[in-house]
Amino acid sequence: METKRIAEILRQGNPGDSTRVQGWIRTKRESKGFSFLEVNDGSSLANLQIVLNGDYPEYEQILKTLTTGASVEVEGELVESPAKGQRVELKAAQVTVFGEADETYPLQKKRHSFEYLRTIAHWRSRTNTLGAVFRVRNACAAAVHQFFQERGFLWVHTPIITGNDCEGAGELLAVTSLDLQNVPRGDKQAVDYSQDFFGKPAYLTVSGQLEAEVMAMAFGNVYTFGPTFRAENSNTSRHLAEFWMIEPEMAFCDLEGNMDLAEQFLKFAFKSVLEACPEDMEFFNKRINDTVLATADNIINNEFERVTYTDAIALLEKAPDKFEFPVKWGLDLQSEHERYLAEKLFKKPVIVTDYPIEIKAFYMRVSEDEKTVRAMDVLAPNIGEIIGGAQREERLDVLEARMRSHDINPEELWWYLDLRRFGTVPHAGFGLGFERLVQFMTGMGNIRDVIPFPRAPESLDF
Amino acid sequence: METKRIAEILRQGNPGDSTRVQGWIRTKRESKGFSFLEVNDGSSLANLQIVLNGDYPEYEQILKTLTTGASVEVEGELVESPAKGQRVELKAAQVTVFGEADETYPLQKKRHSFEYLRTIAHWRSRTNTLGAVFRVRNACAAAVHQFFQERGFLWVHTPIITGNDCEGAGELLAVTSLDLQNVPRGDKQAVDYSQDFFGKPAYLTVSGQLEAEVMAMAFGNVYTFGPTFRAENSNTSRHLAEFWMIEPEMAFCDLEGNMDLAEQFLKFAFKSVLEACPEDMEFFNKRINDTVLATADNIINNEFERVTYTDAIALLEKAPDKFEFPVKWGLDLQSEHERYLAEKLFKKPVIVTDYPIEIKAFYMRVSEDEKTVRAMDVLAPNIGEIIGGAQREERLDVLEARMRSHDINPEELWWYLDLRRFGTVPHAGFGLGFERLVQFMTGMGNIRDVIPFPRAPESLDF
Repeated sequence: METKRIAEILRQGNPGDSTRVQGWIRTKRESKGFSFLEVNDGSSLANLQIVLNGDYPEYEQILKTLTTGASVEVEGELVESPAKGQRVELKAAQVTVFGEADETYPLQKKRHSFEYLRTIAHWRSRTNTLGAVFRVRNACAAAVHQFFQERGFLWVHTPIITGNDCEGAGELLAVTSLDLQNVPRGDKQAVDYSQDFFGKPAYLTVSGQLEAEVMAMAFGNVYTFGPTFRAENSNTSRHLAEFWMIEPEMAFCDLEGNMDLAEQFLKFAFKSVLEACPEDMEFFNKRINDTVLATADNIINNEFERVTYTDAIALLEKAPDKFEFPVKWGLDLQSEHERYLAEKLFKKPVIVTDYPIEIKAFYMRVSEDEKTVRAMDVLAPNIGEIIGGAQREERLDVLEARMRSHDINPEELWWYLDLRRFGTVPHAGFGLGFERLVQFMTGMGNIRDVIPFPRAPESLDF
Repeated sequence: METKRIAEILRQGNPGDSTRVQGWIRTKRESKGFSFLEVNDGSSLANLQIVLNGDYPEYEQILKTLTTGASVEVEGELVESPAKGQRVELKAAQVTVFGEADETYPLQKKRHSFEYLRTIAHWRSRTNTLGAVFRVRNACAAAVHQFFQERGFLWVHTPIITGNDCEGAGELLAVTSLDLQNVPRGDKQAVDYSQDFFGKPAYLTVSGQLEAEVMAMAFGNVYTFGPTFRAENSNTSRHLAEFWMIEPEMAFCDLEGNMDLAEQFLKFAFKSVLEACPEDMEFFNKRINDTVLATADNIINNEFERVTYTDAIALLEKAPDKFEFPVKWGLDLQSEHERYLAEKLFKKPVIVTDYPIEIKAFYMRVSEDEKTVRAMDVLAPNIGEIIGGAQREERLDVLEARMRSHDINPEELWWYLDLRRFGTVPHAGFGLGFERLVQFMTGMGNIRDVIPFPRAPESLDF
């Protein structure tokens, strides 16, 4: 007899099939002469209903061990279910309890707050919501790879530990093998990094972009999908100290091609997840946030609006809405402005391009007007900014000047500049935070609930 | 006119097709009245030959800019190639140089040592060998996801920063936001970790296994594929401080199921790479290590031998070979022993199981004999140990006793023990180092040449 996943049984099982399932008991309901067990194996939101007849050998005794949280294997025959919402249930012929769970098992039937569930992160995946989140997370992650692999992009692994401190200054976490209790001292009592593992200061990366550019300059199209880190000391519902980033980079590509890729990518990701996890997405829409399906539909079925920052400012100035923050050319767009554009004005995703040079990073390509750079931000209704990207500065002299104006010593990034010294090409790319994407897809209120073991200030459990 | 990747043109292009390619010049050969350019765009080992006729406008002038390392876009018509080993070449109608490269470009035609290439890691992907390595690396990484996703395993992201120091003692890299120049002191001059980002000591993970077990206890089958770290102070050709690990974990699974999965996985990975990158694999076999294709064939086409450690010891004792290290029940197998079993005795992959309890980790399941644990190592000819795994100890009392005998405080892993307290199930999993796998597939001598930017003692460039 074959062991089957419950998702498969609920989808394809037929009355009369002999089958075996393995999972954990969610609830038990005793009735006259028989009992119902709801068993879940993590393959789907829905449980499989097991019917255990009163004539089962030592019925009363085994029933005592069939408690919420216990792990079981059940063999039997599928029968048509008289209950609503399920085609089949399993008539138990043989029940084996692997591990019992007494009444101190933390996930008894009552509802728990997400805050409490974070303190038992080793159990929360067995709840409906977190189970659905991590199935969606997996489907979305698989879609990322499928999207890029089908288009011939190479997955490149950029370094996690880096010696570059030029990006994310002040938000870096250091990596060291030195004994913090007795930090070795050298000249003038300065830390003697020659005794550290790497022989110099080391940090956790904030982005793989610069190294991804290196790889794009050899392979054309590449992407990263790996962990990145920020030591932001902010306990918000949208920040993590450790999160996964996706960063495609394309050689011989300008901002138009970059926008095309970002739009195709988002459509593909939402579509794939709706196809892979329809019940989970329905669940989020019903129980967590009733804009979830409408947002997905909006992203999939609309051509994204494309508007320059300069035009966006003009539109915001004409808006009937009162904004808290000032609207003025040269100032960054605030969340309220982005929401107005995507939700009220265009009512669909908007790509804002060509931001003022002063508010963007040193590596973005300077336009002919010398006042803007070829940056882009993708804004989505009910979501806000989800992707940030740019065409990169490929001209050596311009890039060097930009680095100096950002107080970055060009010598530190000699290899990055080298790419512009020999065989430079126009290239572009973007980045998006994977947890943000999953948070937005599922409508979950707190980003700590879309990663299995969240890392944040003072938060390092499990 | 469509821009095409060179791999596609070489495979499917037909004489008469109009096409555009973008890439970097590898070499230029001038002849009477025309010139040949070899252009590579990273999509394949082979270059596309471009023919530039002497009647091209300002021929002499543009020829000077078409140097090794320069980036170009070429439009033209494919014609049958008279040269050996290529079906078509591109007759240039329009050549655009994006970025020139003068004679100081580091990859001039002569051969470079792998040691030297590591010092120019931002260029080495444009060499034949490293280009092939990173294409194979991508194909192998894609195969990992395909294998597990097709079988319903969830990709789970286990934490990179951890508070657990019970594994890999002495090999941990610390993560901190403290100022190393002025480490804050608390009680009795001890480091005041309350001022650190996480409020306590934090480290880079050495394995995601324990957290993967948590996820398997909710979803059944899961896998990790992420970076792990070791501060081993050894400068060998097989160690990195930062490397990617693959760790599947299966609930309701014993050592037999674990062995089956490991065997299927390796066969799938080798097969997928041979299919995706046949030219690159031929190249490794011809230029790097002539056992590459035979090893792949051996893994794909043989049923793996399965032998207990106890039987393996008996076989080694009967071996005609003289070993440097002693063969004795209770001692770990050395590389020479593993090679004898896989290469000389069985001549195919061997899974050795049931190792002495004293030489294996605390989480491995103790057998009835109480002398062995349900561990497994997969050994392959010309490769050695490539996978290590085990059925996990699912019994609370046995696990607690094992932790104490390993000087691990059970309270520190309260959540790991909790999994055995409520609804415990038999489960199993294994781990393999991704770079080791790529190293073995390609036959590359040094593991630093199979990851784009290697991290090792004193090695933190780029």
